[in-house]
Amino acid sequence: MKIKVGISNRHVHLKEEDLISLFGKDYALTIKKPLSQIGEYASVETVSIKTDKATIDNVRVLGPVRNYTQVEISRTDAYKLGINPPVRESGNLKDAETVEIIGPEGSVIAKESTIIAERHIHINTNELEQYGLQNGEVVRIKIDGIKGGIINNVKIKAKDTYTFELHLDTDEGNAFLLNNGDIVDIIKGE
Amino acid sequence: MKIKVGISNRHVHLKEEDLISLFGKDYALTIKKPLSQIGEYASVETVSIKTDKATIDNVRVLGPVRNYTQVEISRTDAYKLGINPPVRESGNLKDAETVEIIGPEGSVIAKESTIIAERHIHINTNELEQYGLQNGEVVRIKIDGIKGGIINNVKIKAKDTYTFELHLDTDEGNAFLLNNGDIVDIIKGE
Repeated sequence: MKIKVGISNRHVHLKEEDLISLFGKDYALTIKKPLSQIGEYASVETVSIKTDKATIDNVRVLGPVRNYTQVEISRTDAYKLGINPPVRESGNLKDAETVEIIGPEGSVIAKESTIIAERHIHINTNELEQYGLQNGEVVRIKIDGIKGGIINNVKIKAKDTYTFELHLDTDEGNAFLLNNGDIVDIIKGE
Repeated sequence: MKIKVGISNRHVHLKEEDLISLFGKDYALTIKKPLSQIGEYASVETVSIKTDKATIDNVRVLGPVRNYTQVEISRTDAYKLGINPPVRESGNLKDAETVEIIGPEGSVIAKESTIIAERHIHINTNELEQYGLQNGEVVRIKIDGIKGGIINNVKIKAKDTYTFELHLDTDEGNAFLLNNGDIVDIIKGE
């Protein structure tokens, strides 16, 4: 069973209140590029992520706004920032790290906002049967090549707006020499 | 079969001629910290690595000097520098990338110097029998945890100065949430 790879660079999802604090009253994000997941997009806007140890600039804001603010970084970024975020599914911010987000019009302390994303596969609900997969199921991924191997703990996430795609972070992409759009194998079973 | 993890950050090995070009006549490296491999050490000295696209500062020089200059970087570094180094065993610089190395007293164009290190295991020659391993054999590594998995193509490298240790780069360490000194499993067979 083959799947396309999408590699997520560090990014930020904002709640409305934080969007306004960072960019100003009545601000709305501008679409730069639609993402493969329907309705989601990379916006033109970027912010800086700051901790006591370091700042990372030019962090892309993804839209649309959510009802929570979430910062997704790699462990390489986490080292640079001097924080130790948990590995979490998007939306689960239990024990997440706190960082400062800085925009052109202000900044916010984003409490318990910052995670390393759990490996996951997006799939359209109507494709589950065709691929023999279940929402919430955990699978593995096999990657070929000189830096190949197997990745465990990849969770199936189904929605009726999702497109079939494996989401990894830049550390995983680079460790396995993967590029956006590469095709890899799903192995059933944990 | 268990083995200790050693994660190699980007670093440079220098030949005598380049050491002198970078640091001055009759210069000798100063030991900062011995490495786990006997006779090898992190030196006090650092250099900058420069390409048309970017510069990475504070790159550690490892000693002692070798009879070739070699720059070992991660793929994350390679992206930043805008180059595409091959994955190579140390010492094999076929089709390696070219970078500029800058020291306090001068700079050199290090032609065909820059690689991404092949995954490998150092082992003392007198330990091979005990572990049932052969020099040049290729094994796999199993890593547990939420970001666990399996790493293929790990080459056994035996020498009578070597200490039993798995060497990965920072991308691999970060993708699998590994730290220096962590213990992982060797799986026999490619």
